[in-house]
Amino acid sequence: MAGVPEEVRPSRRQRTGRRAGRQRIGVSAPAYLVREIPPYEILSEDGLARIEAATDRILAEVGIEIRGDDEAIRLFRESGASVAGDRLRFEPGHLREILKTAPREFTQVARNPARSVQIGGHNTAMAPAYGSPFVMDIDGGRRYGTIEDFRNFVRLAYMAPWLHHSGGTVCEPVDLPVNKRHLDMVHAHMTLSDKAYMGSVTAPERAEDCIAMSRILFGADFLEHNCVILGNVNVNSPLVWDGMTTQVLRAYARANQGTVVVPFILGGAMGPVTNAGAIAQSIGEAMVGCALTQLERPGAPCILGNFLSSTALKSGSPTFGTPEPAVGSLVVGQLVRRLGIPLRCSGSFTTSKRADAQAMAESAMSMLAAIQCGANFLLHSAGFLDGLLSMSYEKFVLDVDFCGALHAYARGVPVDDNQLALDAFAEVGPGHHFFGSAHTLANYETAYWDSDLADTDPWETWRERGALDAATRANARWKALLAAYEPPPIDPATDEALRTFIDRRKADMPDAWH
Amino acid sequence: MAGVPEEVRPSRRQRTGRRAGRQRIGVSAPAYLVREIPPYEILSEDGLARIEAATDRILAEVGIEIRGDDEAIRLFRESGASVAGDRLRFEPGHLREILKTAPREFTQVARNPARSVQIGGHNTAMAPAYGSPFVMDIDGGRRYGTIEDFRNFVRLAYMAPWLHHSGGTVCEPVDLPVNKRHLDMVHAHMTLSDKAYMGSVTAPERAEDCIAMSRILFGADFLEHNCVILGNVNVNSPLVWDGMTTQVLRAYARANQGTVVVPFILGGAMGPVTNAGAIAQSIGEAMVGCALTQLERPGAPCILGNFLSSTALKSGSPTFGTPEPAVGSLVVGQLVRRLGIPLRCSGSFTTSKRADAQAMAESAMSMLAAIQCGANFLLHSAGFLDGLLSMSYEKFVLDVDFCGALHAYARGVPVDDNQLALDAFAEVGPGHHFFGSAHTLANYETAYWDSDLADTDPWETWRERGALDAATRANARWKALLAAYEPPPIDPATDEALRTFIDRRKADMPDAWH
Repeated sequence: MAGVPEEVRPSRRQRTGRRAGRQRIGVSAPAYLVREIPPYEILSEDGLARIEAATDRILAEVGIEIRGDDEAIRLFRESGASVAGDRLRFEPGHLREILKTAPREFTQVARNPARSVQIGGHNTAMAPAYGSPFVMDIDGGRRYGTIEDFRNFVRLAYMAPWLHHSGGTVCEPVDLPVNKRHLDMVHAHMTLSDKAYMGSVTAPERAEDCIAMSRILFGADFLEHNCVILGNVNVNSPLVWDGMTTQVLRAYARANQGTVVVPFILGGAMGPVTNAGAIAQSIGEAMVGCALTQLERPGAPCILGNFLSSTALKSGSPTFGTPEPAVGSLVVGQLVRRLGIPLRCSGSFTTSKRADAQAMAESAMSMLAAIQCGANFLLHSAGFLDGLLSMSYEKFVLDVDFCGALHAYARGVPVDDNQLALDAFAEVGPGHHFFGSAHTLANYETAYWDSDLADTDPWETWRERGALDAATRANARWKALLAAYEPPPIDPATDEALRTFIDRRKADMPDAWH
Repeated sequence: MAGVPEEVRPSRRQRTGRRAGRQRIGVSAPAYLVREIPPYEILSEDGLARIEAATDRILAEVGIEIRGDDEAIRLFRESGASVAGDRLRFEPGHLREILKTAPREFTQVARNPARSVQIGGHNTAMAPAYGSPFVMDIDGGRRYGTIEDFRNFVRLAYMAPWLHHSGGTVCEPVDLPVNKRHLDMVHAHMTLSDKAYMGSVTAPERAEDCIAMSRILFGADFLEHNCVILGNVNVNSPLVWDGMTTQVLRAYARANQGTVVVPFILGGAMGPVTNAGAIAQSIGEAMVGCALTQLERPGAPCILGNFLSSTALKSGSPTFGTPEPAVGSLVVGQLVRRLGIPLRCSGSFTTSKRADAQAMAESAMSMLAAIQCGANFLLHSAGFLDGLLSMSYEKFVLDVDFCGALHAYARGVPVDDNQLALDAFAEVGPGHHFFGSAHTLANYETAYWDSDLADTDPWETWRERGALDAATRANARWKALLAAYEPPPIDPATDEALRTFIDRRKADMPDAWH
């Protein structure tokens, strides 16, 4: 974990800065979270079987369309799917059979091997939010994201002890041409962090660029046998795969790299308003994409994604962090475990425009479901506000703190002699305090989640310190973190080769802004 | 549900007030929540058995003390417990045998029978927070609670569609003498609301007053055969029952009224810092109290309570809404279901001093655990800030909104033909929208939780409307609610009898202020 500052030492002059910038000392962040609690199984076997049967009927009777990728259609036809123009239909069991070559679990290697993440099984890798065109902070309000904002979020994710992954488009760098920005984004992930990262999915040639840069960073042979980059592709729900997207998906699979396949279903718009139907659809759409990775290259890693959401049907606005997608995610988790493919779920969702009470109530609802459903890759773990349109600096550090709490949550309740503490009861006895007991002294340092951001002071102390709310403390915190940031070292020759590649690719293309 | 305003009509002059005061129309609040999801079972059978064995050893080897209630000690001695002075020890199985007469489920009758709550099984009754000496609002900051604050919270709980119970000491009315305030508190619950309520537990004669007033309201014979009042008694953890408290407990049980038995364990202070040990202790302490209700009157309703919390051990401050008590609650739920007694859990916990991001992150962690652990009586569902020392008007309405979300959450994912929506997929087909489909039109009104307080507008609209954060909207909301409040009707003769009783009791005693 070279270059990761274990302790941030902000200026002692500013009390706010000092308190907000305080970092835990002596706690090593894990490379990924190993859940020691079972998933929350909320639906009966009968209910699960009925949803699976509905998925089978949707795929067999309605089918899905692939629009503009003849090779993908050819692969499916050869596998035995029924094809009529763009429309593909699948007999029950057909896709499940293809999916048998998909790995149940795989490693995404980071350039710092201590940061490699294990995706699948009881493991969860948390990554920042992805895709917002805007950024927000308390000082500047909402504005379009820039590459410097992008770099800041990569730096913050690198320093975040509870994020395991650098993510992908942590915000859109709108100041760069759309056809070139992926080069700068991936370069930022590669050089400003040493955590695993994601590549471009907006066009096949951009995906190929990201894979080519990864070959420079990791070596071509290493990449051929190891997953070092993920591409997150969306279904055009309902029931349509855009051919550009399937080409991107196939590019990652062809290189033996990881694909995250995600239907994005706002209930009432891209799917039904009822959860069971939306889940059946979502699983079916994602199975098609995951199956395509296996047809392109059997054994290529893929992750089945889940992005259910709801709609305020009186206004038509999407809503996020609501209870129906949360319970829906629990059921998706049950179903995806039966498929034996790693699961992606989503986190810090909210429609709030401020890092306020609404924001964290909604994000907590969503994040807890993501942990409880057994998500293996938890995209959008930190940063979202504004119905996913804005990446907030303050929300980012608040969410990271919540991710830390989830690490403690996922330890569950271990039961052994030390945890049962019977000696302590004998020592302390009725009516006495445990503060000074041998058991307390032996255990207190690791006993409880200890937030860096939460205010646990008495009211009087809190008032003396400025009566700050959580968002204001978060504002001081991200500034202190960025001020203390130091990049992890990188071999200068590697970086030079990356820059040469980027310069050459940029010179090949005129700027495109749409 | 006479007197419950189904729709609040705030002034149309203030946009903020109108939006914040907006109430759902046409949605009847349920008398109590029936959970359609199973509880979250996080601990294995082996782990549960080991914690039960630890409870047995604590009770048999260390024992508990009852300090100052000879009658309670006599009852336990006669039941076969080992008694040495104040110290009681129990053979494994002894208390479980006594607990067999406790009802698995019971009804607490409200004066409006449509508001009676069913406590036990899959049911959850949510009640406001309890016991804060201070109140807070954005305008006035923190101050001592008064009887007018108390009445306001009773009014707000009455109007809250997602609270089923009026609670008890919703805040301490510090402006009234300690030996008389229970009379005014219970009178407020009886007359300003028609929901079920709780009585005093600070002294046996005050409990008797509350029971006597309940006899006036419900009739002495009715009360003899029905639970109409609950008393919430705390253990003096670790392992001590104060005799004053056991006398209160016996007063409620003797009258066949409900007792909520709650150890209050801050880990590291009143119990070990390790969850498994704190849970073993908590269950043991509570079993003693519940058993005493059965020795006093077999069949009297009791609720086994759970109030685990954590400590910031570097400062010694209690912390709330942290992950360890949340997962601990899930295990307590598993254990209490094996005992077959209704479970109390706690909700809106936080150490934050503002209704901010921290407040709702912590409360959401706590409230979700309370629902997922299968709590039957959910005290502290709304209002706490400031480490439980303050009752916040803004937090109260934010928490009520979250309780509403939990109602949607607890419906889980129903699976039937309508929910699976197969006809809708056939109708809509790939690439089209579900907005106008027959299935959407038939289902959209009830499809999703639709918060009254959350801002789901586009950013531009939100900004035009004043760029308000959630706490500011909550401020407008509780004011609009109180302005629209109308008390439920009560028979004037009954109220007159209650007032006569109160006046007589007050005349009997000099004011006491400590």
